[in-house]
Parts: sequence; structure tokens; C-alpha cells
Amino acid sequence: MAKTALVISAHSADFVWRCGGAIALHEEKGYDVTVICLSYGERGESAKLWKNPGMTLEKVKTERRKEAENAAKALDVTDIQFFDLGDYPLVVDQDAKFKLVDVIRKVQPEFMLSHSKWDPYNTDHMYATQVAIEARMIAQAWGHNPGEKILGAPQLYLFEPHQTEQMEWKPDVFLDISPVWEKKWAAIQCMEGQEHLWHFYKNVAENRGNHFMRNSGGQASGRKSTHAEGFQSVFPRTVDEL
Amino acid sequence: MAKTALVISAHSADFVWRCGGAIALHEEKGYDVTVICLSYGERGESAKLWKNPGMTLEKVKTERRKEAENAAKALDVTDIQFFDLGDYPLVVDQDAKFKLVDVIRKVQPEFMLSHSKWDPYNTDHMYATQVAIEARMIAQAWGHNPGEKILGAPQLYLFEPHQTEQMEWKPDVFLDISPVWEKKWAAIQCMEGQEHLWHFYKNVAENRGNHFMRNSGGQASGRKSTHAEGFQSVFPRTVDEL
Amino acid sequence: MAKTALVISAHSADFVWRCGGAIALHEEKGYDVTVICLSYGERGESAKLWKNPGMTLEKVKTERRKEAENAAKALDVTDIQFFDLGDYPLVVDQDAKFKLVDVIRKVQPEFMLSHSKWDPYNTDHMYATQVAIEARMIAQAWGHNPGEKILGAPQLYLFEPHQTEQMEWKPDVFLDISPVWEKKWAAIQCMEGQEHLWHFYKNVAENRGNHFMRNSGGQASGRKSTHAEGFQSVFPRTVDEL
Amino acid sequence: MAKTALVISAHSADFVWRCGGAIALHEEKGYDVTVICLSYGERGESAKLWKNPGMTLEKVKTERRKEAENAAKALDVTDIQFFDLGDYPLVVDQDAKFKLVDVIRKVQPEFMLSHSKWDPYNTDHMYATQVAIEARMIAQAWGHNPGEKILGAPQLYLFEPHQTEQMEWKPDVFLDISPVWEKKWAAIQCMEGQEHLWHFYKNVAENRGNHFMRNSGGQASGRKSTHAEGFQSVFPRTVDEL
Amino acid sequence: MAKTALVISAHSADFVWRCGGAIALHEEKGYDVTVICLSYGERGESAKLWKNPGMTLEKVKTERRKEAENAAKALDVTDIQFFDLGDYPLVVDQDAKFKLVDVIRKVQPEFMLSHSKWDPYNTDHMYATQVAIEARMIAQAWGHNPGEKILGAPQLYLFEPHQTEQMEWKPDVFLDISPVWEKKWAAIQCMEGQEHLWHFYKNVAENRGNHFMRNSGGQASGRKSTHAEGFQSVFPRTVDEL
Amino acid sequence: MAKTALVISAHSADFVWRCGGAIALHEEKGYDVTVICLSYGERGESAKLWKNPGMTLEKVKTERRKEAENAAKALDVTDIQFFDLGDYPLVVDQDAKFKLVDVIRKVQPEFMLSHSKWDPYNTDHMYATQVAIEARMIAQAWGHNPGEKILGAPQLYLFEPHQTEQMEWKPDVFLDISPVWEKKWAAIQCMEGQEHLWHFYKNVAENRGNHFMRNSGGQASGRKSTHAEGFQSVFPRTVDEL
Repeated sequence: MAKTALVISAHSADFVWRCGGAIALHEEKGYDVTVICLSYGERGESAKLWKNPGMTLEKVKTERRKEAENAAKALDVTDIQFFDLGDYPLVVDQDAKFKLVDVIRKVQPEFMLSHSKWDPYNTDHMYATQVAIEARMIAQAWGHNPGEKILGAPQLYLFEPHQTEQMEWKPDVFLDISPVWEKKWAAIQCMEGQEHLWHFYKNVAENRGNHFMRNSGGQASGRKSTHAEGFQSVFPRTVDEL
Repeated sequence: MAKTALVISAHSADFVWRCGGAIALHEEKGYDVTVICLSYGERGESAKLWKNPGMTLEKVKTERRKEAENAAKALDVTDIQFFDLGDYPLVVDQDAKFKLVDVIRKVQPEFMLSHSKWDPYNTDHMYATQVAIEARMIAQAWGHNPGEKILGAPQLYLFEPHQTEQMEWKPDVFLDISPVWEKKWAAIQCMEGQEHLWHFYKNVAENRGNHFMRNSGGQASGRKSTHAEGFQSVFPRTVDEL
Repeated sequence: MAKTALVISAHSADFVWRCGGAIALHEEKGYDVTVICLSYGERGESAKLWKNPGMTLEKVKTERRKEAENAAKALDVTDIQFFDLGDYPLVVDQDAKFKLVDVIRKVQPEFMLSHSKWDPYNTDHMYATQVAIEARMIAQAWGHNPGEKILGAPQLYLFEPHQTEQMEWKPDVFLDISPVWEKKWAAIQCMEGQEHLWHFYKNVAENRGNHFMRNSGGQASGRKSTHAEGFQSVFPRTVDEL
Repeated sequence: MAKTALVISAHSADFVWRCGGAIALHEEKGYDVTVICLSYGERGESAKLWKNPGMTLEKVKTERRKEAENAAKALDVTDIQFFDLGDYPLVVDQDAKFKLVDVIRKVQPEFMLSHSKWDPYNTDHMYATQVAIEARMIAQAWGHNPGEKILGAPQLYLFEPHQTEQMEWKPDVFLDISPVWEKKWAAIQCMEGQEHLWHFYKNVAENRGNHFMRNSGGQASGRKSTHAEGFQSVFPRTVDEL
Repeated sequence: MAKTALVISAHSADFVWRCGGAIALHEEKGYDVTVICLSYGERGESAKLWKNPGMTLEKVKTERRKEAENAAKALDVTDIQFFDLGDYPLVVDQDAKFKLVDVIRKVQPEFMLSHSKWDPYNTDHMYATQVAIEARMIAQAWGHNPGEKILGAPQLYLFEPHQTEQMEWKPDVFLDISPVWEKKWAAIQCMEGQEHLWHFYKNVAENRGNHFMRNSGGQASGRKSTHAEGFQSVFPRTVDEL
Repeated sequence: MAKTALVISAHSADFVWRCGGAIALHEEKGYDVTVICLSYGERGESAKLWKNPGMTLEKVKTERRKEAENAAKALDVTDIQFFDLGDYPLVVDQDAKFKLVDVIRKVQPEFMLSHSKWDPYNTDHMYATQVAIEARMIAQAWGHNPGEKILGAPQLYLFEPHQTEQMEWKPDVFLDISPVWEKKWAAIQCMEGQEHLWHFYKNVAENRGNHFMRNSGGQASGRKSTHAEGFQSVFPRTVDEL
């Protein structure tokens, strides 16, 4: 049985910028990674599309979905699901929450990925994380759909937001994504509507590579890493060796 | 070459309560663990001894050293060093700091262990950590005793203080010490002058075992652990897999 | 007129582990303590029951209610009320909120007790506290059911969660529950479905007793306390003497 | 075109105590300031009125509105709008949220003002800020009512709550309101139902004047300021000179 | 035997503004209160005096001492001691630290009072608190001057700094000083060199009186208090009743 | 009289990476900027040099000084001073502290720049800031070298550290350095011993430019900025307009 991971993305592009490398890397390691896009970011994160004449909500959603599917393909995503719950604001009602629980239980992820806990620029982001935490809890309940296989205690990693310090986000783990950088770069370029962010996230990946080297030994024995991604853990780890 | 670890303990008993399990466990795994006791805790942590008539500072130090050596033996510590810098307050001058750097460089630890960053009950504890951070930095400097092998970037774990919440200490990793609990329990019992703490730290170890299980899967798939220790990381980790 | 206190418990067992000592102690002092269980914890905190064949939601709720009533009896609780609002997730709508306000106003508590403000393992817990804070505010409003006696400004104490450090909970008061420990221990043993927690909370009570002694004088004049409970105050105290 | 500013006030008196000086000052500078009162504070902040016999919710609302309008006049407010959404608790549904977005877009404020992020005494206050942040985000979305002029990135200032330290509120900017203090004082006196607060907020203004002087040079070159108001910024500033 | 309290004041005027009410009140209750002024504030807090022609350090110290003694008298202080350690910066060497320990042990205070933990405007203030915490610890050590009566675990209250929010100071207890306000006001007026602060601290006392009423019941049953002082506790309390 | 600014840099290269743009920009605006390098970073930040055979401390210092002087020239620095206090660890004794006070008083800066308050990788950095805060306070004391012109209350900006989130650094102001980017880039290239950082800080500047645009209006009206620097303010601002 393949190991699995689950990404909960508020808008359909977030998984690319924020954990595209983690996805591609774990797929290479044999994981099956499922991505859930709670919305398309159709209202709030598609400025470029809306500047076109005659644009409609449906057209934007179609376009955004296409971009996300292309990016998912570039990253070798096993499964991508679109919940289409609307954005700005994203609203997850009880039914959608339970649908999310169903997916979590089906996937039985080794770890989950979602947004930072605070984001004054984008309340959808922090709301998605709140929902992720709540759904994880429900998935652990023996009395929720009794008989189903319940969830263990997967780590929830918070991926990198756009302005880390304003979001009170502090990475406690850096993942070396050098081996799959080309895949992430290809996925980024699928996001045609947000070209202004390509270069930004290339810089982020390079600088996190520098941080990786610093924290793995620096000038002395720091392992070479050209690109990396940072994550903040919500829960403590359990280990047999420090 | 054996892997190595280094414990920096403000007083001669701290390493037992706070990371005795980690020491014994890593020794079993083939690590060479060095323990540095900056002081004997002779003035401030030896109440029981001082209640004896005719007690002197030298006698207390001798007694404390004996207890610490016995505990170290029980934990299979590779090397224990007593810096005898005095306590309440502990004072580490430039020479002592450089001596500590020498040990760090010689040991070249995979990871280091010291106290919480804040402790209003015991300023020696937080001071020891401040010194550990500073000495780690100096040990990384190419221009400090040029020619010596410089230090990489070992993790610094902060071990569990006596009142975690008051010390603003939050564990992000739980280590299963079930396999070596008997060794830790034997080491604890070497601390004859602080018998009132034996039961307390037994409870701590058991309850951290419960936390270990919760965080490794809980009722669903939580791995059995009867005893554990918690640690707070100062630096982010660098990994190839989440 | 007896003094009164009010406990707002997300699930029907929380009041036992987290403030059973405070309840029994204040009942002994002549307080009338009311406990409100917002849910039975029937879905999320009844794993053991659900492992029995043929279990249903109603059976679990009946069983959980029985256990809670037995525990309440063991603690001499004056009044226990079950709101039966469902768990995992707990949902408190406007009507339930106003019903809670009614109870608060009727009880006119000297102090209130509820959960920690943050709990990523259990969103019901932090949600219960959010509701408690909101209901306390409504109960203070002169324009809510005008003519009723409005609420003063009772302290809201947050009782001890299962993993204190992960919940960002910091106790600022320790209550000596040594005189009523036997009652709390009896109440704990009423929780047959969660036997795995009995020993854990016995350890907690003992170790908080140690903290009580440390903070009341330590080796010098620390008052003997074999068992204690910790609480975090939400509001500042008002006093005539420090 | 006049510059503009927008105040989002949970109850109809908040804008007076907390940013009356900022309003009057910016009106003098040529700004058009719009004030939105989400509720009248009719249930929770009108104790004095409710003590009158025969009082009804409508009478209280009428009275509170009159007071607010008088205060707005004293401050030269350009536009004051009453959303009448109810208080204790304040509830802002999707429609009201979008109505707020409409106003934000129409006003196109240079900056916005609302409450502190945390307030355990008054959940309406922190809820209003949460709504303000969310509405600001929606107003920036190209896909919300496409064709309308979207919002830029106005600063959101959090004005001073009643007990600053309990609300975790920290001012990062002091505004000298000495030139308009008489207007603020007149506006304060319009709040007949809360006379017990007049003197309190006079003291606050004077002491913030002292803080203004301290931070502008103190004994050396501190600029004279008899009255000031403090604000906490949510977002970083963008400047061409430090 | 009278109960006792100890104030550790960085400069010779701090005890007046920040805890003059607490001193006078506890003296009225029969406490013996000792005040230690670590310095006179002769360099940094005597601007008005330095503006006089021909002023010297000795003259400033003499004047400051006289003011402090007068204020102490107005507050019925039992004992005031001047350590004369210099200010801006205050430096407490090992000898001075041990002298402070001697006083602490002699006084055996029920509680201690000192400055906030952080103060970027005045490093002497936070340094004084750091020293107070360290000296309290040394005073508890059985091995420090063996044979002396060691210290128990008195609370350390941090009194109100000049700009509370900038100093990260949060009061958790308000003390009603209405009965002794006239004494505090008289003491304040002894500080002739800092007349610009008289009115400021009168406002503070009045507004803290308002906070006292809010937190003791507000509009419903809030106890009348015209003047109060706020304090932040460093350690948890130990109680027999919540 | 030209306006002035003062940079306090722990090691001789810090001012380049962290605020080179601010320096060049303010020089263009007519400010006179003074840079103080407390050390050369000769032991800890000169790895590349130390890898050369026959290297000595003096040679490293000479080389580092040359690089810093070249960079200062590229940035149009008015005055650069080398205190040569040693690094890893940096130690600033009373004399050096007073020498720093002398410079601060002579420069009378509009604002000061130094390091983040916390840096577990580099204690010299946080120590430099601690000294900067203390020296600023002493410079304000009327009794320090009476007769000299005392300091007002200049803002202290903390410039960007190498790993912002680990240093608990949060920028509250972004400065557009696009007009002087070429100068900063030239200065960066003077740092021949740390070529591995050139690209990193180019990325930082570009990404901060993106943040500048986001916070000045984003897709709607965000002002173009290709490069920026971020700063964290220690003290609140005092303004006449929000």
C-alpha cells in the first residue's frame, strides 16, 4: 500500500506556490498525494482574467480549473478534487465539512498540508486551516459514521504564506525540493493568470534552499540544496531518536 | 565513528530528570553522550544536604558529584565533566565559555541539550541556555582557534523544566524512552538528596508516554509508549521527507 | 444564600478530569455548583463504547449521561444539566446560547469554569470557551430580557486541558484539592469508558500538588499539598490586599 | 476629490470614545469621514436607559441613534450610517457583509478604523474587526460585482479599547488631537447615557498626549501635545523615507 | 510579628508613581514595607534639576534622596534604603546583589514589587527586575550563607510602567487604593523635580479605579473605587478557594 | 543643517545586506548617514578568508575593513567608524558603550538602525541591539556629561535578519529602494568574502518589492517597486495625520 498525503488548498492555485515541491517530491517517493481545492479563487484571485472583456464567473472557474489541473499534472498529483465552495469569502457548511471528512478518511494521510493560522490579507486562508483542523478531529471520532476506518493523528503542516511575518508563520522544517524543482517550476508556469507571482516564488524557493543549507550545517557541513520549502508543524512529533 | 550528543546541565542533577531517558536511549543506539555540569547545584539545589549539621560547601560538592557520577553510570553516559563554576548564581566567564567551546568542538555533537529559555524560578537555568547558544555560535566561527574542526549546525533541544507552563516551554517532539525507563529510574534514585522529586518525574515520564501515544495516533493507531520525554527545538529541521 | 459556581463543559466528562476537585471542594465550602454539559461527547469521546457491537448514538448518549451523573454525585454537584447539542463538532445556535444565558443569570455564579482558549486537537473545547465568553457578556446586558437580574463580572477560569503546552494554557492559580481528592478519584472511576485516562489524571493531580508546594514556599515553608488543580484566569482580580 | 476614511463601529458610541479625535482632525484636514455603526449597542451598552421605567428596545435605539448623530455632528462627520444589526451578540450575515463591502468600495477610504482583535469583555468588538478584515478582502476582489471600482490596500487601524492590556492591544502610532480636543469633548458629552465614561476618556486623551510627547522627543525636544489618540496598525506601511 | 513587603525600585522615584498606593495601604493594614532604591535616578531622571546652573552629581543625588525620603514618609514607609549604584546605566555587581539578598532575607517579605520585564525606553527598569528575580532565587538557596533563615516563595508583582503596552505589561490584579489616595497624592507632590508627571499618574489612578469597578461587577454590582493600582504577577498563586 | 541617521552594525558587513538601500536612499535625500561597525566580523563571518593559508586575525580585519569601506563608498555613506570590539562574542564594555553614546549625541540622528531583538544563530546581533537601546537611553540622560546636547527620541528600526521568522522579526514598514538598487547591488558586490550571499539578498530585495506593492494597493493601485527593504519599529510613531 502506498503512503498518502493530503493538501487542503483554499483556492485552486495555493497548492502550487506553497507546497508544489513537497507534492512532487513525495510522489517521487511513492506517496499518493490528494489535493482538495475548496474553491477556484474565482472571485478574489483571478484579477488578470477579470480584466478581460465579457468575463463571467463560470468562465473564470473553468479557466482556473484548467490551470490547476495542468499544474497538478506537472507535479504528478495522484488525485485533485474541486469542492467549488466559493471564495471571498469561502464558506464551508456542515455538508461540505463532512464531505471533507470523507476524503480524509478515505485517503488516511500520513500528513496533511494547509494554510497559516493567521492571515489578515486573506481570511479564506485562515478559515481553510480552521476547517482542516476541525475536519481532522471529526475524522478521528469513532461515532462519526461508525464502522468506517477512523483517522490516526497525522501531522498538519502549514505551508508558506505570501508574507510570512505578517501571518505569524514560523517554519520549523525545511524540505529539500532540489530534485523536483523543475517540476515545481513547470507547475508554476501553468498559473497563467498570476504571472506576476512566478518570479516571487522562484526567489522564495532559492532562499529557502539557502536556509536549508544554513540549518543543515552552514559553511561547515551544510548539505547543498538549491531549492527548498518551509513548513510549520501544528502538532509535536513522536520519535525514537532525536 | 560513533555519533555523539552533548548535554549542558546548569546543575549536576538536571541531566537526570530532564533528559536521562534521551541519554540512555542514544547510548543504546551507539551514540557517545557527553554531559557537562556547569555547577554542582551545591548552594541552591542541595537543601537536604545543608540540613545536616556540620555541612560545608566542599562536602556538598563532593556528595553532589558522587550522585551525578552514579546517575551518569546508570545511564551509560560516555563522558561526564564538571566545570564547577558555582551556582545561585551560575557565572560563566570568558575562559569558561571558551572551555565549553573546546568541548563542543571536540565532541562535534549531532545534537545538543539544555534548559528552557525562560525560568523565573531559576535564573541559572536560562543563563545556561544563553551560554549554550553563544558557545555553539563561537564553535562555528572559522576564526576561533583557526585550524580546528569547526562545528556544523547541531539542533539544540530544550529539555523539560519543572513547571513547563511558567517557563514558556512547549515541546515539539516526544521521544519514546520506554525501552530505557528502568535505567532512568535507577539514575533518578541516585539523586538521594532530592528524593521528593523521584515520584514527580516518574509521573512526568508516564504522562509524556500518554502524550506520545496521542500524537502518534491515539485510539486509532497510537503506538504504545509507557514513558517518554519532551523536547523543544530551537532551530528548524532540514529533511528529505515530511 | 449559598455562593454559587458554574462549569461549562464541552463534553460530559470534561468537568471530572479538569475541575472535579474544584467542584467537590467548593461544595464542601457551601457553594452550589452547577455543571452544564453542552454535549455527551457521544461521537468523539466514546471510543471504547463504539467498539462494542450493536452500539447506537442513543445508547452511547445514555451511557455517557449515566457516567456523568454518577461522577456528579461523587463530587456532590448541586445541579447537572445536559444540553445535548451534539459533538465533533459541537454547534451552539442562538437559541442554545440564550438558554445558556438563562442558566448563567439564574445561577449568578461567583466564578465560571471552562476550557482553554486554543486546542488544535479538539475544536469543541475552544469553541465552548468562546461561547462561554459570549454568553457571559449577553448575561451582563441590561437590554437582554429586561427586568431579569443581570450578571456581575464573575471570573472565568480555564481548567487544565490534556496537553497544556500545545493548548497555550498557563495556570496562574493552583487550588489545593487534597481534602477532596478521594471524591475526585471516585468520580474519575465513574468514567468507565475512558479508563485509559484515570492514571493520567491521578498523576496530573499529584504533580500539581508538587507545584502548589513550590509556589507556596518550597523547601522553606511550602504548605503540604498532595493533590491540586491549576487554572488560568481570563480577567484580572480586584483586591484590597496583595 | 477629497480624501476619505471609514470607521466601523460595533456599537453606536464606540467611534466617539475611541477615534473621535481622529475623525474631527481629518475632517479639518479635508477628509470626508464615513462612520458605520453596526448596531446601536441597544441591549448591552445602554444600562442607564434601561433603568428607566417603561423602556423598550425601540426607544433605546431611538435615543442611542440621536446621541450618535449629535456626536457625529460635533465631530463634523461627513456621513453616518446605522446598520441596525443587533448587539450582544452582534450578528453580521452575508447580506450585511456585502452591504458593508458596498460602502467600503463607495468610500474608497485612505484608511479604515475598527476595534481591537481580542476583547474577552465584549465579543461584539472583536467580531466587528473580524468582519472589517473580511469585508476589506472582499472589496479587493475583482470578481465581486465585476465592473465596480475595487479597493486598494488601505491601512486598518485598531482604535483604543477600554482596557488596553487585557485586549492585547499595542499602539504603534499616536495622533496629536490637541487642535480638535474641544470637538471630541463636545461629542463625548453627547453620550448622555454613559456619563460615567466621560472623565475616563478625558484622562485617556491627556495621558496619550503625554505619550505623544515622550515619543516625539521627551524632555529634549518633545513636541507639545495636550491630547492624543493611539492606534495599532494591522498592515505594514509603505514609505519613501524612514 | 508584622507582615512585611519589599519594593525594589530602580530609581528613587519609581516606588512613588508605581506602587505608592500599595505601600500606604499595606502600612495601614499593619505591614512593614521596606523600599530599596537601587539608584537615585540622578543622571537620567532628574532633567529639571540638571537645568539649574552649577548643578553637580552630588547635589542631584542629595536632592533626589530628600524627595524620596519625604515621599516615603508620606506613604508611612517603614524603611527606605538607598544602594546608590548609579543609573543610566544601573549596574549591580555581585557584592550589591548579595547585599540585596541580605535585605530580602532580613525582611522575609510576603510579597515583592519591581518593574516590568521589558522596557525599551529604560533598560535600568528591566534590569532591576532581572536582578530582583535573581536575588529572590539566591535568597532561597540553603547553601547561601548557611544558617540564615532562607526565603520562602513570595509573589513578585510587577508594578505599572509609564507606557504599559510598549512594555508588554499586563495587569492581572487591581488593588483598590481609594482609602489611601490622599497619601499617594501627597507623596507624588514630593517629587518636585518631575512635576510634569503628577497629573499623569493622577489620571492613571483614576482610570485604574474605573477598571477596578469594571472587573468587580461593572454596572451590576461593581464595587465603588475612585483610585486603584494594577500589578502583574510573575508566579502563580496558591489558594484554598477560587 | 542636514538631517542625519545612524546605523549600528554588529559586524562590518551587516549594514550592507540589511539596510544598504536605506542608507543610499537617505543620502540621496540629503541625510548624512553614519555607520558604526562594532566589530569586523573577523572571527565569525569571514569563513572564506580563513580558508586561505597563512591567514591571521589582523589580515582578516584589514580585508574586512577594506570591503566595508568600499561598500560604504558605494552607498555614499557620510561617515563609517570601526570600533573593533571583537566578535563571536562581541563584547561592549562600559567605555565602548560611552564612546557609542558620544557618537549618538554628536550625530543626533533622526532615526537609528540595528539588528533584530532575538537571534539564536548569532548572539552578537541581538547583543548589538541591546547595546543600541541602552546607549540611546544614556544619550537621553541630562546627567550624562552635563552640558552636552542630549538626544531626543529617535525611532530605532530593526533591519532584516537572515532568517526572519526564526528571529521573531516582523516588518511594519517597507521602504522602496528601487531608485538606489544599483548602488546597493554594487555595495553587495564589495563583500567578496561572502559571495554566497549576494544572490540571496538580491532575492530578498526583489521579494520585498513585491510586498511593497501588495501593501500599497496590490492589483488595484499598488505602486510599482522593484526592490524594497523591510524594517521593524521599536517605538510608536507620533503623527499629525494617519
